[in-house]
Amino acid sequence: MKDYLLKHPWKIIEDSFHPQHNKITESIMSIGNGYMGQRANFEEKYSGETMQGSYLAGIYYPDKTRVGWWKNGYPEYFAKVLNNVNWIGIDVIIDGEALDWEKVKITEFHRELDMQHSILRKQIKFITAENSKFTIESERFCSWTRKELGIISYKCYSDNFNGTIEIRSLLDFDVYNEDSNYDEQFWNHQAEGYEGPTAYVQAVTKKTNFEVRAAMRDKFDSDQEYKMSEIEQAKKAGYSYKMQCSGSCRFELTKKVIIVSSFYTESSKLGKYSHELLDAVDGISYQSLKKEHAEAWEQIWHNSDILINGDVAAQQGIRFNIFHLHQTYSGDDARLNIGPKGFTGEKYGGSTYWDTEAYCLPFYLGNSDQQVARNLLLYRYKHLRKAIENAEKLGFHSGAALYPKVTMNGEECHNEWEITFEEIHRNGAIAYAIYDYTVYTGDESYLYEDGGLEVLVGIARFWRQRVNWSEDKKAFVMLGVTGPNEYENNVNNNWYTNYIAVWCLKYTIESLQNLESRDANAYRDLLKKLNLNSEELNSWHELVDNMYFPYDREKQLVLQQDGFLDKELIPVNALDAKHRPLNQNWSWDRILRSCYIKQADVLQGMYFFENDFDLDTIRRHFKFYEPLTVHESSLSPCVHSILACRIGEFEKAYEMYLRTARLDLDDYNNDTEDGLHITSMAGTWMSIVKGFAGMKLEAEKLEFNPYLPEQWDAYSFKIRFRSNIIQLKVEKSTILISNFQGDAITLTISGKAIDVPASGSIAVNRK
Amino acid sequence: MKDYLLKHPWKIIEDSFHPQHNKITESIMSIGNGYMGQRANFEEKYSGETMQGSYLAGIYYPDKTRVGWWKNGYPEYFAKVLNNVNWIGIDVIIDGEALDWEKVKITEFHRELDMQHSILRKQIKFITAENSKFTIESERFCSWTRKELGIISYKCYSDNFNGTIEIRSLLDFDVYNEDSNYDEQFWNHQAEGYEGPTAYVQAVTKKTNFEVRAAMRDKFDSDQEYKMSEIEQAKKAGYSYKMQCSGSCRFELTKKVIIVSSFYTESSKLGKYSHELLDAVDGISYQSLKKEHAEAWEQIWHNSDILINGDVAAQQGIRFNIFHLHQTYSGDDARLNIGPKGFTGEKYGGSTYWDTEAYCLPFYLGNSDQQVARNLLLYRYKHLRKAIENAEKLGFHSGAALYPKVTMNGEECHNEWEITFEEIHRNGAIAYAIYDYTVYTGDESYLYEDGGLEVLVGIARFWRQRVNWSEDKKAFVMLGVTGPNEYENNVNNNWYTNYIAVWCLKYTIESLQNLESRDANAYRDLLKKLNLNSEELNSWHELVDNMYFPYDREKQLVLQQDGFLDKELIPVNALDAKHRPLNQNWSWDRILRSCYIKQADVLQGMYFFENDFDLDTIRRHFKFYEPLTVHESSLSPCVHSILACRIGEFEKAYEMYLRTARLDLDDYNNDTEDGLHITSMAGTWMSIVKGFAGMKLEAEKLEFNPYLPEQWDAYSFKIRFRSNIIQLKVEKSTILISNFQGDAITLTISGKAIDVPASGSIAVNRK
Repeated sequence: MKDYLLKHPWKIIEDSFHPQHNKITESIMSIGNGYMGQRANFEEKYSGETMQGSYLAGIYYPDKTRVGWWKNGYPEYFAKVLNNVNWIGIDVIIDGEALDWEKVKITEFHRELDMQHSILRKQIKFITAENSKFTIESERFCSWTRKELGIISYKCYSDNFNGTIEIRSLLDFDVYNEDSNYDEQFWNHQAEGYEGPTAYVQAVTKKTNFEVRAAMRDKFDSDQEYKMSEIEQAKKAGYSYKMQCSGSCRFELTKKVIIVSSFYTESSKLGKYSHELLDAVDGISYQSLKKEHAEAWEQIWHNSDILINGDVAAQQGIRFNIFHLHQTYSGDDARLNIGPKGFTGEKYGGSTYWDTEAYCLPFYLGNSDQQVARNLLLYRYKHLRKAIENAEKLGFHSGAALYPKVTMNGEECHNEWEITFEEIHRNGAIAYAIYDYTVYTGDESYLYEDGGLEVLVGIARFWRQRVNWSEDKKAFVMLGVTGPNEYENNVNNNWYTNYIAVWCLKYTIESLQNLESRDANAYRDLLKKLNLNSEELNSWHELVDNMYFPYDREKQLVLQQDGFLDKELIPVNALDAKHRPLNQNWSWDRILRSCYIKQADVLQGMYFFENDFDLDTIRRHFKFYEPLTVHESSLSPCVHSILACRIGEFEKAYEMYLRTARLDLDDYNNDTEDGLHITSMAGTWMSIVKGFAGMKLEAEKLEFNPYLPEQWDAYSFKIRFRSNIIQLKVEKSTILISNFQGDAITLTISGKAIDVPASGSIAVNRK
Repeated sequence: MKDYLLKHPWKIIEDSFHPQHNKITESIMSIGNGYMGQRANFEEKYSGETMQGSYLAGIYYPDKTRVGWWKNGYPEYFAKVLNNVNWIGIDVIIDGEALDWEKVKITEFHRELDMQHSILRKQIKFITAENSKFTIESERFCSWTRKELGIISYKCYSDNFNGTIEIRSLLDFDVYNEDSNYDEQFWNHQAEGYEGPTAYVQAVTKKTNFEVRAAMRDKFDSDQEYKMSEIEQAKKAGYSYKMQCSGSCRFELTKKVIIVSSFYTESSKLGKYSHELLDAVDGISYQSLKKEHAEAWEQIWHNSDILINGDVAAQQGIRFNIFHLHQTYSGDDARLNIGPKGFTGEKYGGSTYWDTEAYCLPFYLGNSDQQVARNLLLYRYKHLRKAIENAEKLGFHSGAALYPKVTMNGEECHNEWEITFEEIHRNGAIAYAIYDYTVYTGDESYLYEDGGLEVLVGIARFWRQRVNWSEDKKAFVMLGVTGPNEYENNVNNNWYTNYIAVWCLKYTIESLQNLESRDANAYRDLLKKLNLNSEELNSWHELVDNMYFPYDREKQLVLQQDGFLDKELIPVNALDAKHRPLNQNWSWDRILRSCYIKQADVLQGMYFFENDFDLDTIRRHFKFYEPLTVHESSLSPCVHSILACRIGEFEKAYEMYLRTARLDLDDYNNDTEDGLHITSMAGTWMSIVKGFAGMKLEAEKLEFNPYLPEQWDAYSFKIRFRSNIIQLKVEKSTILISNFQGDAITLTISGKAIDVPASGSIAVNRK
């Protein structure tokens, strides 16, 4: 755990340079706008520890996989998030020597991420070897209002410098991925050059042929005379400004960069389009562009902020999570998804995991227009064909669909048999998301009209083919799976997987029946299209009625999988601390045969399907499984926090909340330097809204059961629900509910029905 | 299955060129002498399909592993069998163009491996583009009597050639491994040059620093005048002979090569030593060297031959297997072992698998001086320290030893968690080999004096720590293992592993008790040395008494592992042929959850411990498990063949025998081009001796229960047993037993005690 950043409700501040943590700071202070993103790399040269990262949504590269022992069915390629053109570079060359933060003597250092406005700032004072004192101030952002625009305001001054100074403002396409499997560069260079006041570079990805062009214009001012020239260097373009200073010296640079790609624009038009976009901002000052950007962010916060009074660390933590979720995915393009590292690092590759459906969807449902969540569903429908092909590679047939564990374009990327082939519960979460969206929004059109049911049928078919009849158990069993708890591999009858498989079948059957009642023609057409007959439907019923679930009668416990009670059940808190985290200290076999659980598994099921279980049952399972859980997945604590609230274990709930809220800010898992845990950030939001505030949907009614952690004075958040925007403010003695948008609405607050009038507020006393 | 080689009792013959099978032929016709080996690559240039292979015992390279997803405990390196100096090269350059068998027109082709004398021959006639007819005859061998000597006799003639011809006789150290993980060359070149009549090259392996020197001398004769010169080329050395021919033309070359290495000789003396060895053969003709080599091989066959009358394919098959086993391992160096591909290919790397103990040891016990088998045991004792370190890496302690799955120097090489960490039954086979050797030879000195017991204690400690108490089963269980059947991974309570674990403990306890009776002081010293106390011994007893074994009461079957009866049990013969082999057609998860068995698992245990089970029990398990077995490991059929003989299923026994005997000759598994399945060849020998002839050891008495396959007229073999050499000849009506060496001996033949006098024979009528 690290604690070098200042706590502030709206900012992340590093007030003296921590070079040993620079890669962590680069991750944490990343900026982005859903279209592009940029790690908090210095504009200037830095020869210390750094990972350069500039990312563009949708642009990926299928790197040839590296595998020890090949297995049939493995994919050949792993889609990587691509390090893109470096557009931030500003070299400052003082008396012929490039300023390098690793080498110069820094006297004052301040770097901050302004989360309220998504702006990265720094102010650094330093002294040269010749005792000249300089100050550099820079500010940059990726515009929310003009997605293709990245912009930097850069100021430098000295009062006692005599000598030459050169500024090189650069675009650089000579970039690499650190995680390239075979040390290859993923880009083929296409062009660099100048047109009028514009410098540009362009490159194309190997294999995928994505073309990306960056074009820039500078505005340079100085109190000295300067000589401007074009920089001639392969794969680079930009401008050089040279001056002779005697005594005082000052300059100011505004660098406007437009980045466009063939993901959105025809290749042949990239040049023209980037010039148009530059033209459009030519006459607009940095301050004006910043103003429109900042106002857009204020609007985002207006709808999405969670306010926590009395605990600045918690306040900073939750805003940090909300901030990065918005930066990563704005939801206007159904071809995009939420990568596990967003625009903050390369690790894991791919962009889509079950995280999207299981953790992120509720956040966007509660915070964004419903089209955003709908696009996440459409993304999977677009990939249905490939999910069917993926299942066929594994021996399934007749339209059974297995969605990939990791994907960029619908094809599987991952290559570990125990994950790729066996962690199939992901299929369940994809079906669950359709249910979640449909009941939350009340919008049934995706389910019945726009492909949702086809996705469900593909998934149902998969489950039906994946089980087999056990003569021994006289029931259907599911052999050889990996559940959400990845610290078990190739187990039989993982309870969660069996449960969600049966749920998928029931939900699909029920949805088909609903369609039949709504529109008999549409139903007939769908059956015909999918070649689905009553025999197959009967076989689904047969499975629903005869699935095996591992259960221990004596303990009244469902078992995580067959044989779980054969393990030595020693609670985590009895383990010597030197063993933790297990995944860094134990060999894999030792982890597997131990009882330790990486992340919620049985409890994940009880969280998804909480209405199927009474509180005693949930409590019994929580008390059994939580003490065996090491939470070594970032996705684990939030589910536990929510369930702990349900069963009144508030101390545990708060402990779990803390593990998720500041996971990256405090570098809990010692891996923030690789990038942030974007998808688990949605879990933090859920911990407050579904956990502390106890939000549930029951028979189409929104229900809250608010709890206020002792450490806080109050908290409040807004939530979108259908046509309403509701705000809940939980204070020590009262709960204030406001209805900002939509008609009057009846909510259940701590068990009581409360009518909240349109545009009105109601205060409810807390027990 | 391929059928392009001629059947002959002593030879493997390819009588017309099959370029599409050239890599297979290269594997099959490999020659070696336990010290070095050489694939049947052409001496001449060949631009078609080929895999160059020249190997030297003990010389390996730890190649950096290639792993998709790293797991704690994985080794960094994988020891590779090294492609060594190419010593066979003879280029024939006709009118400036190098003869290339891919390009020239071949009119007659004959290539043969003479197994009786371990000689590779070829005779090829060809016509050049200018219609000149040539004949080339070559012969080569790796001398059995002078291990460092490889020698080639090379003849070429033409009756209608007018032009120039140049012969280049070469040593070439510019060699690569095809299986290099990162396309690196594993050798650093050291020197090439000439000293007097000797050309030499020398190189050193990277990392391991093995130095290898090859030195050669030629004897060249021609009916034409020729010009000899030294070849100047980096990493190469040798001689060029140029002639101008008009009409007839003939030359003859004898190339003698000595290969020495720092594995045996101090680096600084390699030059001198290689010259001395060349000096020693300088005055000896090719024919004389061949004669001493051939006589040595005749002696080997005198002791080891299995004669099969009436079935030339079977005769060729068994000799092929015996031949390659001797070529691979001569047993005079306890640092060496039997690599799965011997000297015939690179694949798999490492040199030692459990194959050695489980399959090869009985062959060497029956065929070689007992020192050979003893060296195989000593090899493991030498690696005990590293086996303890290996176990420590996985969290074991107090001297518990886990031998590696694959090794060259005692360190683990393999990197698949389900194999490396979980296929731990190998430890059992290593203990079993000590038992096997001790009861077969009667030599107890390895067990009690030279380290055997220390190995057993290390292994016993591992098993004791590897199990845990199941409160649920009220017994000890062993979770997360991979049994011999590698088509199951990470299973619980693999019956074979549980059984051999308990056997190891019992055998160790019993051996310790025996030592205490024999020599109380030695016993006390050993306990002290190993820090072994009565508390630990008691904990072993506790495990022996309380181990869990999966069992189905109704079916009266031990189960391969927990939950085996949950599978769909469809016999292999009901599977569509298009699915076979499964490992080339099914994804890994499908194989794992299926009932199909790669190789003997429960039956492997019943083979090892057959005296623990009555014939009915063996029969019941054979009938249940064999129909589910796909035998996709080369190690599977032999065990089934032996057990089938025990239970009188002779048709099945013969079917299984055929699958093992000609596995490589007929390229059954479509992978002979990578090299031969050396270790499984010992299984073929066992199929005859332990299977058809029914050899068993019962209370220190050798017992035979011979069966003669219908397809054969007779078979006979010799077997070493303690001080005796016995021959068994099984004919239609009689069994002839001869005692060639040692005192009179009492054998049990088909249930009857038979006394065989010293140097005498006894004929017994068959029922």
